[in-house]
Amino acid sequence: MPRTGVATGEHAIDLAALARAGALAEVEDAEGLFSQASLNAFMAGGPAIWRACHGRLRELVANGQLPSEALFQLGEVEPLLPFEVADYVDFYSSLEHATNAGRIFRPEADPLPPNWRHLPVGYHGRAGTVVVSGTPIVRPCGQFWRHGQAAPEYLPSERVDIELELGVVIGTPSEHGRPVPVDEALEHVFGLVLLNDWSARDVQGWETVPLGPFLGKSFATSIGAWVTPLEDLMDRRVPGAAQDPVPLDYLRTEPMAFDLELSVSLRSAGMASRGEPPQTIVRTSARNVYWSVEQQIAHLTANGASLRTGDLIGSGTISGPEREQRGSLLELSWNGEEPFELDGERRTYLEDGDEVTLSGELLSDVSGRIVPSH
Amino acid sequence: MPRTGVATGEHAIDLAALARAGALAEVEDAEGLFSQASLNAFMAGGPAIWRACHGRLRELVANGQLPSEALFQLGEVEPLLPFEVADYVDFYSSLEHATNAGRIFRPEADPLPPNWRHLPVGYHGRAGTVVVSGTPIVRPCGQFWRHGQAAPEYLPSERVDIELELGVVIGTPSEHGRPVPVDEALEHVFGLVLLNDWSARDVQGWETVPLGPFLGKSFATSIGAWVTPLEDLMDRRVPGAAQDPVPLDYLRTEPMAFDLELSVSLRSAGMASRGEPPQTIVRTSARNVYWSVEQQIAHLTANGASLRTGDLIGSGTISGPEREQRGSLLELSWNGEEPFELDGERRTYLEDGDEVTLSGELLSDVSGRIVPSH
Repeated sequence: MPRTGVATGEHAIDLAALARAGALAEVEDAEGLFSQASLNAFMAGGPAIWRACHGRLRELVANGQLPSEALFQLGEVEPLLPFEVADYVDFYSSLEHATNAGRIFRPEADPLPPNWRHLPVGYHGRAGTVVVSGTPIVRPCGQFWRHGQAAPEYLPSERVDIELELGVVIGTPSEHGRPVPVDEALEHVFGLVLLNDWSARDVQGWETVPLGPFLGKSFATSIGAWVTPLEDLMDRRVPGAAQDPVPLDYLRTEPMAFDLELSVSLRSAGMASRGEPPQTIVRTSARNVYWSVEQQIAHLTANGASLRTGDLIGSGTISGPEREQRGSLLELSWNGEEPFELDGERRTYLEDGDEVTLSGELLSDVSGRIVPSH
Repeated sequence: MPRTGVATGEHAIDLAALARAGALAEVEDAEGLFSQASLNAFMAGGPAIWRACHGRLRELVANGQLPSEALFQLGEVEPLLPFEVADYVDFYSSLEHATNAGRIFRPEADPLPPNWRHLPVGYHGRAGTVVVSGTPIVRPCGQFWRHGQAAPEYLPSERVDIELELGVVIGTPSEHGRPVPVDEALEHVFGLVLLNDWSARDVQGWETVPLGPFLGKSFATSIGAWVTPLEDLMDRRVPGAAQDPVPLDYLRTEPMAFDLELSVSLRSAGMASRGEPPQTIVRTSARNVYWSVEQQIAHLTANGASLRTGDLIGSGTISGPEREQRGSLLELSWNGEEPFELDGERRTYLEDGDEVTLSGELLSDVSGRIVPSH
């Protein structure tokens, strides 16, 4: 039966079992809260209840007081999507990524759009196709116009890509009609996950003018099975990028970033069949963002839009200045023009059978394998 | 206590009370299904259960067998959002609207983007800010760049607009990874509502490149309190627009439209205080769409994206070729350059205190009044 849990080291702690054993008396109706298939009810409770639970768990672990019926090997449990996604918003907040994408897609223009340094550019994605790490990714079909063809066609995408992102998970909702002040934004954050914003670049390229990305993104977005509580990440907060021009008042704050190393590994079907380990193809840091989480939340609600428990906010692809720091294959292969090497082969976009894993310090891995179109 | 109901003429039928009275024996667990604050559980049941319930209600009404405890005056009930919105997608499927918007925003270019006649252009909107008719609309603040200013500012929007749309409500979900064939698309549709896709044109204009509309739309979207079952609209289906070029196979079908007259009325605070009636400013027809509902659903799922119960699919603004048929103030006032007359005043975008009502044959009204920014 699905229930909520906490991953710690090699173990998963079954919170419902812990509550039944009477070990979570600090949390009101703990058994009801945790005997559910998602974290949403707990997430809606707010920071006080999160901290109470967190403190109690630390204590139980430290004192070796976890009852055996609440303890499982991580490998034994089948992870589900950790929360029901309310709205999914994806930002575009890495300066290097936005610059690279601009150079690739609009080589004749200024790589950054005129609004980029004034506001965190973002858009809504599809909440219903957010899936948990490990879910196979069916190569999407879509409409696109191949070079040299007389008309667009409907075909399996030939440019399936990844995007390495941080995902912010909203716990406490906000009131519709009332913007969230930038200095209060973090109070709404339950935790962070890694997020792979799978993309079909050929579909995206053809559909995107004038209303933005749609089916090139909506086939799947993978997130980690375990949400890292914000509380566990606060000592990794470091000053973020200098912002020029100074943002408008509603966005003005000391921009902070998370000092977390991130990486992407790739293993082809051939490598897997030969028992070879995945190869790391991207090494970057969550510091490589221009707009902070607080600024993203303040902007997202600046028009009075409300936050709901379960809102998922992607950072946008996190790329750094070096080639190895590029968080998408679009950038790593410069849209296919500069193949990278994988196990002796020249590679650009994803092949069927490829398994991609995003990893990050203190964050749960996000894996997905490309399976052929039906 | 919230529960689900049916509007018929001057009355609301309380389905939970009807179930308790044993009058809905055709529907399994009717009392559980209808003693809820939303239609989602019923909508998830699928066409067979919708038809059974529909048939039974017709019979009860025709035979005068409605128990008095299940019957309310419509004016007595407080309508809630009729269903929990899963994902909200907004299309751009009226040729006249897309052409007008192109002429206004990109006067130097072909008004239609190159992809427009090949696929139904659309994007995801914010599901969490869909509100029921009657909800006041707070004038959104946002970042935009006023003509002649040295930098963008954060201000109450000066160009709050409406968009007259049909909204399709998805009942039966589809499987992730499996596109819905165009000829099966209608089986997923529970019913239709009118939809006002409120827009802040100044915010939208500044933010929209390169990822599409975001905060210019996400402050609120209003829908009718009562969903009209698709079954009640099938005899209004008529052949739609001729499509040239012929769409790709996955979109190929006889495109149908709904023959429903639609209108928009506006009443200013001054008119209301003088007891004057609203003035009709738009008269158009739901026939004025190029891409059909079936084609929109087939496209939306063409990459394997799944449908969920509660998905809301907007048609895009429905404009016709005549000035009076333009479904937004952007078009009606040609972005403010050609004011229209309201009660003797020259008007362009919405003023505080304005009350807008969308009406349509067989569809429930959608009203909203603009209240000042906080």
